[in-house]
Amino acid sequence: MKPRINIITLGAENMERATQFYEQGLGWQKSKASSGDIVFFKLNGIVLALYPAHLLAEDATVPDEPRGFSRITIAYNASSEAEVDALIAKVEKLGATIIKPPQKVFWGGYSSYFKDTEGHLWEVAYSPFTTIDEAGNLVM
Amino acid sequence: MKPRINIITLGAENMERATQFYEQGLGWQKSKASSGDIVFFKLNGIVLALYPAHLLAEDATVPDEPRGFSRITIAYNASSEAEVDALIAKVEKLGATIIKPPQKVFWGGYSSYFKDTEGHLWEVAYSPFTTIDEAGNLVM
Repeated sequence: MKPRINIITLGAENMERATQFYEQGLGWQKSKASSGDIVFFKLNGIVLALYPAHLLAEDATVPDEPRGFSRITIAYNASSEAEVDALIAKVEKLGATIIKPPQKVFWGGYSSYFKDTEGHLWEVAYSPFTTIDEAGNLVM
Repeated sequence: MKPRINIITLGAENMERATQFYEQGLGWQKSKASSGDIVFFKLNGIVLALYPAHLLAEDATVPDEPRGFSRITIAYNASSEAEVDALIAKVEKLGATIIKPPQKVFWGGYSSYFKDTEGHLWEVAYSPFTTIDEAGNLVM
């Protein structure tokens, strides 16, 4: 098994609302591979998918039970503290819930968490210790 | 906010067990950026991190409540049905729980789900409709 991930799928309670957030809100372009119940966004190599939560549970053959903490977070690295502030202001306008306002954190960076419209946790952070290459990937 | 994800962090109940699964088990190489409580694996552009679940909850400022379905899945695309079978046999030996044995699925592919040692859902699938480029990324 090679060190790679191809698709991250976020189960959505409301596909229209979720698609609105990522496509119209963030301006991410839907892949032509999207069809029927599934929406794909091609990111930096990996693909982000949105899929109705109950169908994702059915596909994985697990019960779609109410969540506590998913124990998974997805991080977006920004290029400066100001960019973190600007991105958090933007997603809040788009209907995201700000869970942890931008702040200096123990590891020396500047970080914030929001929940997207479906409750998935995203961290938006700036780290003075890493840079981002042209493809948008962390150099580490 | 550009279309990208930099880090996926999996909260671990037991860091030693989780690291054993990904590092010694799957043979993924730990990044030198790993330190203290956090382990990083550099994948195809994005980074996979392992971090104690209770500290991840603390970092995100959310309660570390027991989970139902996280509503997030991570997919690994294999190159053939036989490779799906082989990978599932391998992770089972490494202590993963096979949730959905490899099988033909409604969208025309061949798919399987397992939970890693910490309970995170991975799909291992073969799709006859997509190819994988040299970097390990889906062409779609």
